[in-house]
Amino acid sequence: MLLDSIHSPTDLKRLSMSELPQLAQEIRQFLIEKLSVTGGHLAPNLGVVELTLAMHYLYDSPTDKFLFDVGHQAYVHKMLTGRMDRFDTLRQKDGLCGFVKRTESEHDVWEAGHSSTSLSGAMGMALARDMQGRSNKVIAVIGDGALTGGMALEALNHIGHEKRKLTVVLNDNEMSIAPNVGALHNYLGKVRSDKTYRKAKDEFEWLLRKVPAIGGKLARTAERLKDSLKYLVVPGMLFEEFGLKYLGPVDGHDTEKLIEAFRQADNCEGPVLVHILTVKGKGYSPAEADSHKWHGITGSYKIESGQVLKPVGPPMYTEVFGNTLIELAEKDSRIMAITPAMPGGSGLLGFAQRFPGRMIDVGIAEQHAATMSAALAMEGMKPVYAVYSTFLQRAYDQVVHDICRHNANVIFAIDRAGFVGGDGETHQGVYDIAYLRHIPNLVLMMPKDENELRRMMATAVAYDDGPIAIRYPREQGRGVAMDEQPSPIPIGSWEVVRDGDYAAILAIGPMVHVAEEAAELLKREGLSVRVVNARFVKPLDEAMLAQLAKEHLPMLVLEEAAVAGGLGSAILEHYAQQGLKPTVQLAGIPDRFIEHATIKEQRAEVGLTAEETAKQVRAFALLKRQRQTAN
Amino acid sequence: MLLDSIHSPTDLKRLSMSELPQLAQEIRQFLIEKLSVTGGHLAPNLGVVELTLAMHYLYDSPTDKFLFDVGHQAYVHKMLTGRMDRFDTLRQKDGLCGFVKRTESEHDVWEAGHSSTSLSGAMGMALARDMQGRSNKVIAVIGDGALTGGMALEALNHIGHEKRKLTVVLNDNEMSIAPNVGALHNYLGKVRSDKTYRKAKDEFEWLLRKVPAIGGKLARTAERLKDSLKYLVVPGMLFEEFGLKYLGPVDGHDTEKLIEAFRQADNCEGPVLVHILTVKGKGYSPAEADSHKWHGITGSYKIESGQVLKPVGPPMYTEVFGNTLIELAEKDSRIMAITPAMPGGSGLLGFAQRFPGRMIDVGIAEQHAATMSAALAMEGMKPVYAVYSTFLQRAYDQVVHDICRHNANVIFAIDRAGFVGGDGETHQGVYDIAYLRHIPNLVLMMPKDENELRRMMATAVAYDDGPIAIRYPREQGRGVAMDEQPSPIPIGSWEVVRDGDYAAILAIGPMVHVAEEAAELLKREGLSVRVVNARFVKPLDEAMLAQLAKEHLPMLVLEEAAVAGGLGSAILEHYAQQGLKPTVQLAGIPDRFIEHATIKEQRAEVGLTAEETAKQVRAFALLKRQRQTAN
Repeated sequence: MLLDSIHSPTDLKRLSMSELPQLAQEIRQFLIEKLSVTGGHLAPNLGVVELTLAMHYLYDSPTDKFLFDVGHQAYVHKMLTGRMDRFDTLRQKDGLCGFVKRTESEHDVWEAGHSSTSLSGAMGMALARDMQGRSNKVIAVIGDGALTGGMALEALNHIGHEKRKLTVVLNDNEMSIAPNVGALHNYLGKVRSDKTYRKAKDEFEWLLRKVPAIGGKLARTAERLKDSLKYLVVPGMLFEEFGLKYLGPVDGHDTEKLIEAFRQADNCEGPVLVHILTVKGKGYSPAEADSHKWHGITGSYKIESGQVLKPVGPPMYTEVFGNTLIELAEKDSRIMAITPAMPGGSGLLGFAQRFPGRMIDVGIAEQHAATMSAALAMEGMKPVYAVYSTFLQRAYDQVVHDICRHNANVIFAIDRAGFVGGDGETHQGVYDIAYLRHIPNLVLMMPKDENELRRMMATAVAYDDGPIAIRYPREQGRGVAMDEQPSPIPIGSWEVVRDGDYAAILAIGPMVHVAEEAAELLKREGLSVRVVNARFVKPLDEAMLAQLAKEHLPMLVLEEAAVAGGLGSAILEHYAQQGLKPTVQLAGIPDRFIEHATIKEQRAEVGLTAEETAKQVRAFALLKRQRQTAN
Repeated sequence: MLLDSIHSPTDLKRLSMSELPQLAQEIRQFLIEKLSVTGGHLAPNLGVVELTLAMHYLYDSPTDKFLFDVGHQAYVHKMLTGRMDRFDTLRQKDGLCGFVKRTESEHDVWEAGHSSTSLSGAMGMALARDMQGRSNKVIAVIGDGALTGGMALEALNHIGHEKRKLTVVLNDNEMSIAPNVGALHNYLGKVRSDKTYRKAKDEFEWLLRKVPAIGGKLARTAERLKDSLKYLVVPGMLFEEFGLKYLGPVDGHDTEKLIEAFRQADNCEGPVLVHILTVKGKGYSPAEADSHKWHGITGSYKIESGQVLKPVGPPMYTEVFGNTLIELAEKDSRIMAITPAMPGGSGLLGFAQRFPGRMIDVGIAEQHAATMSAALAMEGMKPVYAVYSTFLQRAYDQVVHDICRHNANVIFAIDRAGFVGGDGETHQGVYDIAYLRHIPNLVLMMPKDENELRRMMATAVAYDDGPIAIRYPREQGRGVAMDEQPSPIPIGSWEVVRDGDYAAILAIGPMVHVAEEAAELLKREGLSVRVVNARFVKPLDEAMLAQLAKEHLPMLVLEEAAVAGGLGSAILEHYAQQGLKPTVQLAGIPDRFIEHATIKEQRAEVGLTAEETAKQVRAFALLKRQRQTAN
């Protein structure tokens, strides 16, 4: 095994170039085996084995800077930089991160998780290098999907203008997570399919030699003709217009050709785009056949059959969302589904099949998706913008400026709200309450179970007074009975799910059940605790809040979201504005980023458990005594 | 006067095409005169007189949808749609809005204020039209500057893919507010400068007829050659690669040619981009000579000389920021200034002159600017990202994911925090506390006067532990004495600016002085009120908060920011987590969008005045009595 001898990029450089294909083979075998136990981003990494080998073979990391866009395709990079022995812990608590991570290795210079940041990162690093008179290389690796994200295009526009030396590797596999959409994608398709471009070059040179012979008044025209011919021999003219030198397309599974292209790039002045063609899932036939499914596998799988082991039990919230949307859309032709490149992850594949014309995948373009939804709503449609909590961050301004300011009837289906598990800190959906709650006109809710999700969707569709958002967790439902015809919930109404007179827990989403368990624990101690499903984060149920204050019930607010600016904060503001001072304690996510682990472990880490909740409620008695002593 | 006969687009359509130039002339005269009193966006509107005439002459608004990007160039549109008599009230309270406004007219179908939203809006409107089987036209007008905003490029990519029928008018005047930067700009420059493109067309046709004669193995090559020739005759090939039909460039000051181009566009299938060339400030020589200055004029000016009347008194905060940054940069070579197309508005023109290599204008690209700043910081530089509060909303995700999660040493200079006056609801800088406060690792502060701004800048430069932000208002300083060598302020330290023992007002920024005035009013009634400059929104001064609670002083938190998620909210959370229940009242901006008026009027509208503040403090006594009665 060559792999056993690789502990650092230095070891790799000792191999001859002819040994690299064998090493690539061994790396693929390693990944397929390891990930069959841990899960992870198999297909993206199988696609970049040769690319990563070529980069580490030729360049000198970490002096030369590698920026992997998103960073889920850095497993091979991790293997080559001394982290091979940690793959059993991939995406687990205190284990190897599924993305690039600066604290893990000096070779990890650029972290991400969200797409389309690498070009801005590369531009900044190239700029700092030039300011400091260094001469290191800067290489960004970005997929054709990520390139359609607005910020990547902003960066491309700036890179082409500044002309700093850096290399953009366009890893073209025709996929984001799902197959790509967009004009740029179509353009790349044209470039890819026309394999004769390069062959034609010689023939054109013959033509070029003929052209100057055309004299007289056509001389200037002939000059132009020569210029124009580069559009034929340089297939990536679009990138040249953006001010980058284009090289390619290069076979991304041929290490030698990749190294040759990189050397050529290094010899150019200014920024260069190297267009490489790769196959997502390369070398593992189930992944090659369905790279969408194999983009990220959360559980284990059987290597031989490619069978992914699924959790048994109730459906995921995502699935309930997708199925319910189909039901609602059958009855209401205004409903459309909008997704920024996440048709599968958002549970919309069934919807797309049933209503192909009413499903719009805009590619990785969260901002455009939001503002386009505003326009659809203003023209009488009911757009349902299905998006992960963490990715909606990209469209914050559009939510404020284009949707809520217009009071447009957009429905937000905010998936993966709360902790997300193995994807870790870049993907946690814990800020949405804080970044949405202060925006005028918005209604924001969270269901306690999958049937309430259905009811909230019915609520949202029936609501024609402005934007309305439902956040729901990345987990299975509770297995509750489902209403055939889900009825709308009155806007701003909470519900008491358990009565009690010692204290009250105001909880949302999965925390309602944590609160119920805590109440059960406390019951054994003779403490009767009321549990409120505070399902509307905005507007609050002011009548119930008044009632709770009137009863002098101490309250604990329990939410799987940042405490700062969260539901608890909203309740405190409300009481302050009413001039009331009931006892309100806050339980939620503290002011720091929470790393990868299981969702259960993440909840435990911040005390969002029945035991900790019970402990906090018990402390109310102590607090009361202290206050009585103080007064 | 033709103008007197125009009360609606119908009136316009009654004119002969040959009368339009005279009408254009009258419109310009009208705008130059009216705006010389009210101020406003003169240069952009002078640039689109013929364009707007052509649109209303040919199309049928509001059935056909006009989407003006940003919307500051819609004055002519307002004049033609029955609002001429309201121009004396432009940008004033209850007066004509400086942007497109749906509540003003049925002809205003798309509102904005922030750049680069019109293409997403147009895509949504075209989609809704097709879903509903309508056949109206959709026309977006976007500047070459706005086109570099990421979301516009996301939209372009989607428009080219979807192929819905719509027209994008690219209003190319080589300017955003400042001169444009970026590769796309350079590209357009190439297209513009080559005036012979169209003339060459005939000559190429001659060549094309020759090409087929080349037979044999070169037949396929010749075919390609023909294809490639369109790169010569179609200068906007880049847009064609994006999937739009390109028409132009067209003289944007020739109504007849514009109408001809629009008719041509209407006859095309799918999306069309009409590239028009205009002169910003056209017809008013001071504005033509300096369209950057004349982009938006906030006060009045003398028509003859073009002299803009400036307010007298202390410098604007913006100016103090710019000058102080130069001083700091003289001593610290790590400092760089980053601006998303606002070098003038952000007070950086002096810095750019002094340190041209250390000033980076990225164009309208707030997201890229943020993430590039993260990379600069990670490589040892001290980037100062100068941005308006309202535009930083565009980079919320990048602030979370790329700057704060990395704990990168980026300095945010957040200008125009709080109310902004005449620009109105799209530009209010009132959410920054709410959208920043919950992000881990960030320090957030606001100075009470211009000397404290200097000290906070010194604080930020000396601080190497992560991201740090200063928000400051759009107004003149207080005229205080300036420290020659501003000393840093200990992180998280508030200051008592006036002592008192009846109650305390905790205020930030300009509100500190409102609080002092209120305290002065209350003193006359024998109430002694403490005023605290709560200059760090994050971290809070926990020692002082503990002291205030210990003294049982009722507190009023006074901030020119949304109450929801604001400084007051942070203080409530802190006390809740400490298990303390002092009396805390909140004063700030309520949960609705606040329209254009003067800053003073906007403050009065929401009660951010000394009188209202005094009233709220007086109420503490009542509150106390009530509580005593209740207990």
